[in-house]
Amino acid sequence: MKVLLAEVNVSEGRNLALIREMKSALMEGAVLRIMEINSDKDHNRTVFTFSGEPEEVLEGTKRLAKKAIELIDMSNHTGAHPRMGAVDVVPFIPARDITQEEALEVAKAFGAFLGGLGVPVYYYEDAATKPERKSLVDIRRGEYESFAVKMTKEEWRPDEGPFEFVAKSGATVTGVRFPLVALNINLRTDDLSVGKQIVKAVRAVTGGYQNVRAIALEIPDKKMVQISMNLTQYQKTPIHRVFETIKSETESRGILIADTEIVGPVPVMALEDLMKFYLRCYSFNMEQLY
Amino acid sequence: MKVLLAEVNVSEGRNLALIREMKSALMEGAVLRIMEINSDKDHNRTVFTFSGEPEEVLEGTKRLAKKAIELIDMSNHTGAHPRMGAVDVVPFIPARDITQEEALEVAKAFGAFLGGLGVPVYYYEDAATKPERKSLVDIRRGEYESFAVKMTKEEWRPDEGPFEFVAKSGATVTGVRFPLVALNINLRTDDLSVGKQIVKAVRAVTGGYQNVRAIALEIPDKKMVQISMNLTQYQKTPIHRVFETIKSETESRGILIADTEIVGPVPVMALEDLMKFYLRCYSFNMEQLY
Repeated sequence: MKVLLAEVNVSEGRNLALIREMKSALMEGAVLRIMEINSDKDHNRTVFTFSGEPEEVLEGTKRLAKKAIELIDMSNHTGAHPRMGAVDVVPFIPARDITQEEALEVAKAFGAFLGGLGVPVYYYEDAATKPERKSLVDIRRGEYESFAVKMTKEEWRPDEGPFEFVAKSGATVTGVRFPLVALNINLRTDDLSVGKQIVKAVRAVTGGYQNVRAIALEIPDKKMVQISMNLTQYQKTPIHRVFETIKSETESRGILIADTEIVGPVPVMALEDLMKFYLRCYSFNMEQLY
Repeated sequence: MKVLLAEVNVSEGRNLALIREMKSALMEGAVLRIMEINSDKDHNRTVFTFSGEPEEVLEGTKRLAKKAIELIDMSNHTGAHPRMGAVDVVPFIPARDITQEEALEVAKAFGAFLGGLGVPVYYYEDAATKPERKSLVDIRRGEYESFAVKMTKEEWRPDEGPFEFVAKSGATVTGVRFPLVALNINLRTDDLSVGKQIVKAVRAVTGGYQNVRAIALEIPDKKMVQISMNLTQYQKTPIHRVFETIKSETESRGILIADTEIVGPVPVMALEDLMKFYLRCYSFNMEQLY
């Protein structure tokens, strides 16, 4: 079964009635699995995370986005999180049995739909039409308040929709990105310098693993140091290898790992390597799971 | 999301046109995940394994069973596998977020439906109405050929449907059972006596773990010995603990584990323990998976 994941970020995190209306629009007749609906009042933002067959995910995303641009007026919006539109950013993430091309088709169909509703749309990540548009941070720089001017520049012409600022909806970014795994490992030490040494062993830029971004943080509540990582290509640089490296680097310094956290959605495929490495279950196929 | 698994065993494994008709009946308008359709010509038997929300699984099972009793005539049936009916045995297996009671309701609704179609039905395992009916082997003993007589006995009165033998459909067994994990561990030795020692360390009846059934087998093709196990309560006696015990018992005899096989469907919940034990990811929730 093909499974696609969508994370729809909308600029409303306070008015529960509106959030409920958006959820209803999303679920209308849909066969989707809602994984999380996370509203943040300070950010004034809600993230709807859901998965299902690509066609269902596309239709649900359209219904949700249409409702969001109807209900949210960006000209009144305040909130701590960077944002540029009522429907701010919508990544589609291939989960199972789905190619990047199929996911791109969904993102482009969604972008064209939103453009047709009169919302300026930019494609990012794997759907970017130019290298400067790969990164969400670059597209969103200046935020909503700057777009009336930013959009008049040739290099920031939208990929879909009107070539001019729309005060109510603002602009939307959509595209396809590879699933990240957010892995935090807590060490039984409050010595940040040890954490910084261990980060160097795994982080790509300091000679560690490709596809690992890492920082060391203090967690004062727990009196621990945390190695906070993003694994950007878990198939090539899997969870267990990074974990085992941190374990051996930590233990060689006379310190143990306290625990591990994996934050947010995790592609089930990322567990296949665990079955192989720890249980030697080389023939295991994730399709066996139910 | 509630997920229920059904394994519908029907007594037809040769006529592909009939098997296809049964599959179509199952899928008609349904939102089910087909995990496996396994036909065996020698057994003359097909197992349809599928999962989905309980209501969908019930409806799909009804459609499939109705079609099977229409298409299969047991009075002509031959095959190596023990059987008693066109729809032979239908276990429902709780997979996610579903209580035993909810699964029992589905099994009873299915049994009543089949009974209403004129098929004698027995409830087994967790749905059994008497201790003697817990085991499929006991109910099915004597097979189809003996049921014209067996059913006349008071103690083998069916739980649903007519109290008399029906030559075309035979009888059906349905119920609820806990998911098994079928775990085989292959050792780098061809000495069966080593395998037999190791089996003793894990098998409940010889002082090993509760909820583990195990035998040692020779695998002549691979020149290996296999420890073939069923874990009948993976929450209480988890995969990793049995694996680690076999690993240490094997290594203390100077032998290594070659590989592991997990056969058939695996409840995703069984992987939660792996995340906790090997990665120390104590907070992991299977709902994070997509």
